Amino acid sequence: MEHSDGGSTVSVRTRNLTHTAPAEVSLQDALDALGDPVRRTILRDLAGSPDWTRACGTFDLPVTKGTRSHHFAVLRAAGLIEQRDEGSRRLNRLRRPEFDEHFPGLLDLVLAEPAAR
Amino acid sequence: MEHSDGGSTVSVRTRNLTHTAPAEVSLQDALDALGDPVRRTILRDLAGSPDWTRACGTFDLPVTKGTRSHHFAVLRAAGLIEQRDEGSRRLNRLRRPEFDEHFPGLLDLVLAEPAAR
Repeated sequence: MEHSDGGSTVSVRTRNLTHTAPAEVSLQDALDALGDPVRRTILRDLAGSPDWTRACGTFDLPVTKGTRSHHFAVLRAAGLIEQRDEGSRRLNRLRRPEFDEHFPGLLDLVLAEPAAR
Repeated sequence: MEHSDGGSTVSVRTRNLTHTAPAEVSLQDALDALGDPVRRTILRDLAGSPDWTRACGTFDLPVTKGTRSHHFAVLRAAGLIEQRDEGSRRLNRLRRPEFDEHFPGLLDLVLAEPAAR
């Protein structure tokens, strides 16, 4: 979903990480990203921690390492999270204000969802 | 998703049609239902017509008759539409107020989406 046209670059690359701004995300991509319960768990966990304090490895997820990386990549591509590397850790931030601006109410529904039983 | 416990029946059966009340729908089921572009097209079309004026056959959808029936069944099970049969026609109503109450903002995002290109 990286995209640039002339002078205006709408995606930001942090080292090797491609980010998509929420304003560039389609409703389809947002719904696809939020349609997975593991990804919603990540978002709820992130919402409960200050920005840039949670490394990917600190999330308790019932998936393999490869699947975990895929989930974070999908969240990044849907404008839901921002990531940056610090040493060997990849830190995360929930893009709550900017996602809310583009998809009002959607993240609120996810964050209010009861944790998976 | 039909469910009844003693005196309180939360789903309503109209002849052979099972309905689920939005309050009984999980976020997962709502997101799954809304994750399909054909189903979102049906909802946008319905929103533009008065209740109970649109028969299933009047929607211009790029799918077979069987797939069409499946999409309407998914929307019914997710608390998004109500249906009733009148003669040979199956009429539809968008359950906008009650769905909005349970999932504030979600249907607004779908209805505001530009039609598929």
